[in-house]
Amino acid sequence: MLLKKRFMVKEIFEHRSIRKYTDKPIPDEVMNSILDAAIRASNTGNMQIYSVVVTKDKNIKEKLAPAHFNQPMVVNAPAILTFCADFNRFRKWCEQRNAKWGFDNFLSFITGAIDATIAAQNACIEAESHGLGICYLGTTTYNADKIIEILDLPVGVIPITAITIGYPAEQPKLTDRLPSKAVVHYEKYNNFSSQDIDKIYAEKESLPESQQFVKENKKENLAQVFTEVRYTKENNEHFSKVFLDILEKQGFLF
Amino acid sequence: MLLKKRFMVKEIFEHRSIRKYTDKPIPDEVMNSILDAAIRASNTGNMQIYSVVVTKDKNIKEKLAPAHFNQPMVVNAPAILTFCADFNRFRKWCEQRNAKWGFDNFLSFITGAIDATIAAQNACIEAESHGLGICYLGTTTYNADKIIEILDLPVGVIPITAITIGYPAEQPKLTDRLPSKAVVHYEKYNNFSSQDIDKIYAEKESLPESQQFVKENKKENLAQVFTEVRYTKENNEHFSKVFLDILEKQGFLF
Repeated sequence: MLLKKRFMVKEIFEHRSIRKYTDKPIPDEVMNSILDAAIRASNTGNMQIYSVVVTKDKNIKEKLAPAHFNQPMVVNAPAILTFCADFNRFRKWCEQRNAKWGFDNFLSFITGAIDATIAAQNACIEAESHGLGICYLGTTTYNADKIIEILDLPVGVIPITAITIGYPAEQPKLTDRLPSKAVVHYEKYNNFSSQDIDKIYAEKESLPESQQFVKENKKENLAQVFTEVRYTKENNEHFSKVFLDILEKQGFLF
Repeated sequence: MLLKKRFMVKEIFEHRSIRKYTDKPIPDEVMNSILDAAIRASNTGNMQIYSVVVTKDKNIKEKLAPAHFNQPMVVNAPAILTFCADFNRFRKWCEQRNAKWGFDNFLSFITGAIDATIAAQNACIEAESHGLGICYLGTTTYNADKIIEILDLPVGVIPITAITIGYPAEQPKLTDRLPSKAVVHYEKYNNFSSQDIDKIYAEKESLPESQQFVKENKKENLAQVFTEVRYTKENNEHFSKVFLDILEKQGFLF
């Protein structure tokens, strides 16, 4: 992409998910900058109700891999950063100060989840500015129960997202995006007519990689690849149940 | 803060929440860069299951203000950006392509919520690089029901977070953070002893602003200000119920 002058933060506009990494280790001072970037993130009431688990140990990465559907980068990346909604520390502090907390509910969970995600994105941008590549692991919420067990997350802590991180060994091209009118609404939400939908998705549907995707998966169209192969109703419902059970087990559905 | 050389993205390390803005309007080309930054954000499967509502109209800002507990910046900021988990567009597309979707569940909601938050943080960093100031509105999840009504959000769309944005008319100092060992765990989660908790919170508790906060609110200590004044059990439980009702109403708890 040709960077236009009005774009200021090049990491944002040049971001690609990197899934292949060189063997070059991440220097401690670089990792510390990345973690400090996470810590400086905006957060609710400055309670800092999030935490980051940095996993470099090969044995632990190998245990984490199945939770991330064995994506090879989980073992091959020099480090995995798992970002968690975390009320454990804050609850402990309140208990030691005779302060009766009420953080065992859904609002507390979603607040911690938002804060953990803002921290994660700060870490990603800082990492990329040091020449590192990252990839988000959406699988974190699918198998949060397994991750809780592997990383010893106590009650009050739930993994929200994770990233693999390392020096890039690939240079993928920029992925497509829908036209901005698909995402941005002015003043209020302007709902879409069926003609709007056709227009918004036309370019994406016509991309050679989309057509290849449809062909490989033997579907009629791109939407069916999403609903019948990648994000099926059955899987979504199964992992929803798992995640709601975790909310209860980790103390957020009182 | 004296910037050390190893910190690369200055917007991250110099971030303060800005609540007072000048009258200077945000040029369209700057706003477009900010929105493009949101659109370039990492997202799940490139489904782009988020949306942004840009509100500049004074009447609508005045309607939004009570949903944000009448924080004055909501009316005074040149613009409010409300970031939403959004499966409305994607569901419509699937329906028009004879693709049977299963996105009416909790996993879909949390996936959209994470993606909306990553997009929001990209927008914030790009905005700050243009000299603008932002402040997150955590109240977005408290009164999501009112925001849904005011912004005409259809089924499938839930507001997750919002920011006020404008040119700064204040220069607040950097807020404190806990020592990094409070937030960062290596390999696995290292739970805290009661001594750890005392050490972690010692500096924060001793800050003059913390002590002032305790005195003003006539509490014994800082933790009690959080649990008895700012984030009470009663409020958290009330707004949890409201939010879970919204999940059902907006089609995410099938």
